[in-house]
Amino acid sequence: MLNNVTQLIKISVTNLSTQGWLIDLLKIHKNRSQKGFEMQTQNMTPTYRLEIEGIPGGVVSLSLSELKSRFPKHTITATLQFAGNRRSEMNKVKQVKGLNWGIATISNATWSGARLRDVLLSYGFGPEVAAKAKHVQFEGLDRDVTGTAYGASIPLNKAVSEEGDVLLAYEMNGEDLPPDHGYPVRVVVPGVVGACNVKWLGKIVVSDEESFSPEDFKSAPAIQELPIQSAITHPAEGTSGDRSDREGTVKGYAWSGGGREVVRVDVSIDGGKTWHVAKLRTSDQEQHRAPPPPPGRAWAWKLWEIDVPIPHRAQELEIVCKAVDSSYNMQPDTVAPIWNLRGVLSNAWHRVQVKVRESLKDQK
Amino acid sequence: MLNNVTQLIKISVTNLSTQGWLIDLLKIHKNRSQKGFEMQTQNMTPTYRLEIEGIPGGVVSLSLSELKSRFPKHTITATLQFAGNRRSEMNKVKQVKGLNWGIATISNATWSGARLRDVLLSYGFGPEVAAKAKHVQFEGLDRDVTGTAYGASIPLNKAVSEEGDVLLAYEMNGEDLPPDHGYPVRVVVPGVVGACNVKWLGKIVVSDEESFSPEDFKSAPAIQELPIQSAITHPAEGTSGDRSDREGTVKGYAWSGGGREVVRVDVSIDGGKTWHVAKLRTSDQEQHRAPPPPPGRAWAWKLWEIDVPIPHRAQELEIVCKAVDSSYNMQPDTVAPIWNLRGVLSNAWHRVQVKVRESLKDQK
Repeated sequence: MLNNVTQLIKISVTNLSTQGWLIDLLKIHKNRSQKGFEMQTQNMTPTYRLEIEGIPGGVVSLSLSELKSRFPKHTITATLQFAGNRRSEMNKVKQVKGLNWGIATISNATWSGARLRDVLLSYGFGPEVAAKAKHVQFEGLDRDVTGTAYGASIPLNKAVSEEGDVLLAYEMNGEDLPPDHGYPVRVVVPGVVGACNVKWLGKIVVSDEESFSPEDFKSAPAIQELPIQSAITHPAEGTSGDRSDREGTVKGYAWSGGGREVVRVDVSIDGGKTWHVAKLRTSDQEQHRAPPPPPGRAWAWKLWEIDVPIPHRAQELEIVCKAVDSSYNMQPDTVAPIWNLRGVLSNAWHRVQVKVRESLKDQK
Repeated sequence: MLNNVTQLIKISVTNLSTQGWLIDLLKIHKNRSQKGFEMQTQNMTPTYRLEIEGIPGGVVSLSLSELKSRFPKHTITATLQFAGNRRSEMNKVKQVKGLNWGIATISNATWSGARLRDVLLSYGFGPEVAAKAKHVQFEGLDRDVTGTAYGASIPLNKAVSEEGDVLLAYEMNGEDLPPDHGYPVRVVVPGVVGACNVKWLGKIVVSDEESFSPEDFKSAPAIQELPIQSAITHPAEGTSGDRSDREGTVKGYAWSGGGREVVRVDVSIDGGKTWHVAKLRTSDQEQHRAPPPPPGRAWAWKLWEIDVPIPHRAQELEIVCKAVDSSYNMQPDTVAPIWNLRGVLSNAWHRVQVKVRESLKDQK
């Protein structure tokens, strides 16, 4: 179902991604979603209700069929990335908290649903609400062992902007959402950290407050947009190439938060001393050349690829990639200076070591 | 007039900043503004006209007093940065084209004028124009030796968005614009590269094209928003501290493009091995604590300061700063991997070497 780049990328951006905050700038989401919740969603269509609070006229309650029939269906292709993607590279510098994710807690899919903007406007959202409220909170139907729902919030201007493209999604790649992607409804907030894309959506609250307990509040802003990111998906770390091959193919993904388009990816095979410019594609299907997205609305990743000449006597290659987005943000060179205890925002140049074997021909 | 950080920062973001593009992603503005043009602006008020093209109903022609009286006056504080700021650090890697700018081609001021949005809407801008046009071009009254006007353009959505805050400015820090800041009218495009803030504004064109000659067009987007930036303004390179001082004060500025707020600045005195978090201020007047800007509309720089302990036996300190913005963009570690022939977008960690002298007391 997912548009995976290679077998290396097997991804599910789940609501387990709740601890995506810099530790010294810490804000914790209300709670983790409960494992096994997926199993209970299978037959919930008849009873499903989406509640909306904080707008004039009291609480709105919508069934799935009302959500589908009352609002136009919109479709976007968007990449979701967990704030802890590539956390394992921070673990190599010094132990961090959280699961030891590699480069695969990122995925790309085509989502369809009602626009959150349309729904809020139809239930009386207007300037007098905007004058007080600053955030839109989302709450999942899933509960942890203490009975607390998973929650996250986004800034109001992202939620209601015509250019924000926030969806109450009920389809993924043209089919009903799979249970583990939040059936029957999840919110898709393109350009924003995976943790805000709440699954099994039960409640929307327009509020003057973020979705955090007061004791979690610290001085820095919650992570919303993630910075420019890229990673090498082929070849894999520790694999070998054959010396008789004159060229090797390097492939990967690149994405940036906030709808900023990836405009360039550079690849090095000598650890960053010299660089080659990679070819960018919008999807696995190169024959489908999509028109460029409007400025600030590039929600989907780009796949990149390059054939690099392998130096004659090389025994080992240190392959490195780095990307640039349309606001000319670039990735930091190294991991250590961006290390943080939660292991989030890991976006230094991605490095892969491969060996170059003596060719079988040479050995004969 | 400018809100300078220290004596080190003496700045004028002039229209000389026309070559702010990556060379291999090159787009050149139409031309440079002509030196000495400032002198001719002194008595132009009675004859000044601002023309607006590309909207229904033909060409609009506005006098300065009409611009002032017909539209509400808005005020913003915004930092303007030349794309070639800190170009001199790229010159140390390998020679680039352009003037050898240090860290001072950036400035901060309070600007007042009519909102471009209000002006365009009042002359018939609407959905049918937006369906065709994608850019707003600006043209200065100044001419180069070939008679060509200076030109630049910005995306239409930045020009007409309520949150774009683009001004047709006629005041700077509460007074008429000075001649070298574009008297009588300049456009202030907050969050966008200095070169788009066209002075001595003569013409505005709503268009489906950017303000470039076709032969200049290459594959990458024009530079609009600049990436996260910071620099050390005190102490200066090559100065000395006294060994008897236990602490030294380090000061600087930090800013990011696109209205992204600076949320953190880290300072190192050991070349980047260990870091300290600096205090951030919104202006030189620390007693005036301005309310935080709305999300995505942080147009002004932040000044930062920190007292760092000086190690007992240190003979030399390598002071380094790096900043983080509200989308968690970070600066690249080193200059070489972002080097480009035009010497633009130079935003690697800023480094300053200072010596630690034997104290006069010790020498007695």
